[in-house]
Amino acid sequence: MELVTSIQSMHDLAERLRREGKVICFVPTMGYLHQGHLILIQEGKSRGDILVVSIFINPTQFGVGEDYAVYPHDLEKDIKLAESVGTDFLFVPTVKEMYPESYQTFVVVEEVTKNLCSLSRPTHFRGVTTVVTKLFNIVRPDVAIFGEKDFQQLITLRRMVKDLNFDIEIVGMPIYREEDGLAMSSRNIYLNHDERKAALSLHYSLLKAVELFSCGERSTERIIGEVSRILGAEKLVTIDYICICDTENLRDLAEINTDAVLAVAAKVGKTRLIDNVVLRPSQ
Amino acid sequence: MELVTSIQSMHDLAERLRREGKVICFVPTMGYLHQGHLILIQEGKSRGDILVVSIFINPTQFGVGEDYAVYPHDLEKDIKLAESVGTDFLFVPTVKEMYPESYQTFVVVEEVTKNLCSLSRPTHFRGVTTVVTKLFNIVRPDVAIFGEKDFQQLITLRRMVKDLNFDIEIVGMPIYREEDGLAMSSRNIYLNHDERKAALSLHYSLLKAVELFSCGERSTERIIGEVSRILGAEKLVTIDYICICDTENLRDLAEINTDAVLAVAAKVGKTRLIDNVVLRPSQ
Repeated sequence: MELVTSIQSMHDLAERLRREGKVICFVPTMGYLHQGHLILIQEGKSRGDILVVSIFINPTQFGVGEDYAVYPHDLEKDIKLAESVGTDFLFVPTVKEMYPESYQTFVVVEEVTKNLCSLSRPTHFRGVTTVVTKLFNIVRPDVAIFGEKDFQQLITLRRMVKDLNFDIEIVGMPIYREEDGLAMSSRNIYLNHDERKAALSLHYSLLKAVELFSCGERSTERIIGEVSRILGAEKLVTIDYICICDTENLRDLAEINTDAVLAVAAKVGKTRLIDNVVLRPSQ
Repeated sequence: MELVTSIQSMHDLAERLRREGKVICFVPTMGYLHQGHLILIQEGKSRGDILVVSIFINPTQFGVGEDYAVYPHDLEKDIKLAESVGTDFLFVPTVKEMYPESYQTFVVVEEVTKNLCSLSRPTHFRGVTTVVTKLFNIVRPDVAIFGEKDFQQLITLRRMVKDLNFDIEIVGMPIYREEDGLAMSSRNIYLNHDERKAALSLHYSLLKAVELFSCGERSTERIIGEVSRILGAEKLVTIDYICICDTENLRDLAEINTDAVLAVAAKVGKTRLIDNVVLRPSQ
């Protein structure tokens, strides 16, 4: 594995690999790699000739008062983990080179970023689409892999890739969970013992929703009511949102008559966690 | 010369050419080609192995009430002209394929688009940067060529390319003028006999400014005053703006102590024309 830290080196590498006809597969991350990331990376390994992983804690996707300054990082460990699953190039650019003084260009996806996480993080997706555009231009991948835990991010990036004519296949990978069901996240490290226990209610509430849905419930109001009741019963949990949306345009649904995503976001103590499940009426 | 109308065909072509190691040079236009365009295209021919010209009247860069619906076009003539100066591929996509239903992604350069043309065309540059991003992703050029008549556009695109890490060299070409000095523009076709005569005042006013500057005048207020007096004397001319800005960040200057652009925009009859000249105190 080769560590690449300058944008120009990564540019040149990608260009050379493409001219050699290599298929480049790319997994962008913010580092502090966990098993969920490793599964994305392993999937990437199987989909291309060359696997590039990036680690970049992107300041533009954090809002004021969010956890940018304290976001967990451990580059030494990440290097070992990335290498252990077959990464060819680990791209770790600096904030200074990614966002030099007088930086002023942003990519905005307008419709699918109106709901869900944007309600409490209004500039988050602008930061995500901007940094991913930059990374795509630097790494020049044929395939890029993202986790479905960040469901709105995945839909937003698919939309961006289509709209801006990037010739890149976007692959979404299922949520990877701890043994007890908690969705893997670098932010889980923030949780203390009691919070870790309370955080499980996110998963349980989704399981309950799936059960209701399987029994024929199609009213989003009733399903959301049940999820809300379960999360509300946990003292350490503060609900940010519970939404059931069309998986295509992320607009709220009153009735589940098309593929829908039930997405929840909540603070557990001070840690904001998200989780989701897709509900398909056709299956 | 090959005419390419589908995005996928252009994508595939560009990818094949790049894998063959060819240098792609690109000249994006809105068509109705005039001598000014042909000079850009000839320059392009000398800078790459493969020359791609695009013709696309981009709806997102026109505001409400502007001339999108009546913008001049003559594809048959453009095809002959493009071929005559050595174009290899003429890319003419459709609006329907470039902006399908549910299109929602935009590229915004924030600072350098605040002044000048944005004052009366607030959404113009968002349309330009968005369509150029799309075209860059489809055509995958190594070099792209733009005219300096659209000075703010050139600065904005240079900024965008740097910020979003496009690996593309942006070349700016000097304004090409009619024999009497009027800057070439597809919109000159709109002018009737009297307006055509009145339109020359834009060029004259810039010449006068250059004369003052050569004689040591550095006050932008005094130079703008003189330009304003000359344009104001023409009954058919309505001034949109007269600005003297730093060529880097396009902020207004009080005194010309760095490279500056004197840019004017005016309506001549109903036709909006622009022109500019760069004033360099170091020379």
